[in-house]
Amino acid sequence: MIREALRIREKRGKYRNAAFLVEGPHLMDMAISSPYTGIKRVFFTEAFRGREEGRQLLGRVAQKGDAGSSGRGEREVFLLEIPEPLLSRIAGTETPQGIVAIVSYPVTALGDIAFRDVPFLVVCDGIQDPGNLGTIIRVADAAGADGVVILPGSCDVFMPKTVRATAGSLFSLPIAYSSPDALADYFEVSGIMLAVADVRAEVPVYAFDFARPVAVAFGNEAHGPGRELRERAKGLVKIPIIGKAESLNVAMSATVCLYEAVRQRWFSGGRGAED
Amino acid sequence: MIREALRIREKRGKYRNAAFLVEGPHLMDMAISSPYTGIKRVFFTEAFRGREEGRQLLGRVAQKGDAGSSGRGEREVFLLEIPEPLLSRIAGTETPQGIVAIVSYPVTALGDIAFRDVPFLVVCDGIQDPGNLGTIIRVADAAGADGVVILPGSCDVFMPKTVRATAGSLFSLPIAYSSPDALADYFEVSGIMLAVADVRAEVPVYAFDFARPVAVAFGNEAHGPGRELRERAKGLVKIPIIGKAESLNVAMSATVCLYEAVRQRWFSGGRGAED
Repeated sequence: MIREALRIREKRGKYRNAAFLVEGPHLMDMAISSPYTGIKRVFFTEAFRGREEGRQLLGRVAQKGDAGSSGRGEREVFLLEIPEPLLSRIAGTETPQGIVAIVSYPVTALGDIAFRDVPFLVVCDGIQDPGNLGTIIRVADAAGADGVVILPGSCDVFMPKTVRATAGSLFSLPIAYSSPDALADYFEVSGIMLAVADVRAEVPVYAFDFARPVAVAFGNEAHGPGRELRERAKGLVKIPIIGKAESLNVAMSATVCLYEAVRQRWFSGGRGAED
Repeated sequence: MIREALRIREKRGKYRNAAFLVEGPHLMDMAISSPYTGIKRVFFTEAFRGREEGRQLLGRVAQKGDAGSSGRGEREVFLLEIPEPLLSRIAGTETPQGIVAIVSYPVTALGDIAFRDVPFLVVCDGIQDPGNLGTIIRVADAAGADGVVILPGSCDVFMPKTVRATAGSLFSLPIAYSSPDALADYFEVSGIMLAVADVRAEVPVYAFDFARPVAVAFGNEAHGPGRELRERAKGLVKIPIIGKAESLNVAMSATVCLYEAVRQRWFSGGRGAED
């Protein structure tokens, strides 16, 4: 079982069967509360079980396992107490804080993303840095997006570094994979406008109407969004730079765009964009 | 001279005499163009000088040295070709890209910060992570702030990791150090309103008027802004969280706040806040 955990840590393209590792009590807590995840196996140390907080968390893990027998396959949950050095070997961090789990995350089909209100999606097109991808997922969650769509060429959502950078938001949002073509078809059918953030755009982000059904796409750190996606966009928007900085990085650009959507949707009396 | 460079790399509290290391052609380029920096010494490799881009950059460095004789002390500039392994030892990165310089950065006094338009300052109160501090300086520059004020308890602005995270924006903005008391006095005299970003605040960032003379403060990653600063604030503002995320990190919060200021100042017909 240790070997299986190490294999999951090392393998590439994890997301296709979507078993990955989650470390530390905070992320575990988010994973347990998530409607999207299953807990397959939990490794913890004696010291972790000895703490009140640890005991409570392990109790909740066990319950999630029982609840899972209703059909999601979480019946598999095993709680495994192992020595500290073994846990450190499984964990990617120096200090795994006493608990590491193998978590399954069924990827959502595009058409299965549920909308809470006016549709609001985030699209990642070739985001290469796990810190950036995780941060974008975190902002997407904070801004109230309904889901995140990952296009080919992006890094792995389920790498430990990405998962940590989401600060648990990975477990709050459905993640879907798509091609630019399938995505464009889906937007067509469901009446969702695609906006693409692009440094070469003319329109400042403040002039775009994010209050309607919208998907906002962010592209590769070096090359920006791909041509395929830009050609399908209904709007190309840019973050204005007032000072001497050359640009913002993609995670900061996403923060500006998605929070401009928050302002328009929740704090401007439903007026949408201003110009 | 190598030993002096290594001492500068290692020493703590660098900012008090403000000599620090800058690595790679992009940051060097920004440092040369900056009105705030002096170049004290430049180390480069034979391979760097062999490239056209490298030759041009070294030519500009030499010119900056001459120009400096007008009084800023840049007459000291020395161009030193050294072997690759020595350069790597001086540099903090694995791949210093052929050039490392010792740069001096005279800290600006609060009262000497020049305003381009309606005053707009950013205050860092105990920001501990160099990546966060650097990112905040980068966004401050991009958003057109007039300067960044560092309060006690923040990490060192001139650490290599901070300098890299600013992506060169460190060289575009004056940096001042202050105590909360001196800062409050200065704001009083100059008619600048202090806004503090605080997760415990009631007022969403969109309801605060950033179009007036304003300073926006961001606090420690774990504990938020200090009590001293909050007591002196004319407004406490929060970033609304729509989804399930617990919070944004401080660099993302700063991005939202400072770009809301950009919107109000440049893209809303001078109306300021909406409610």
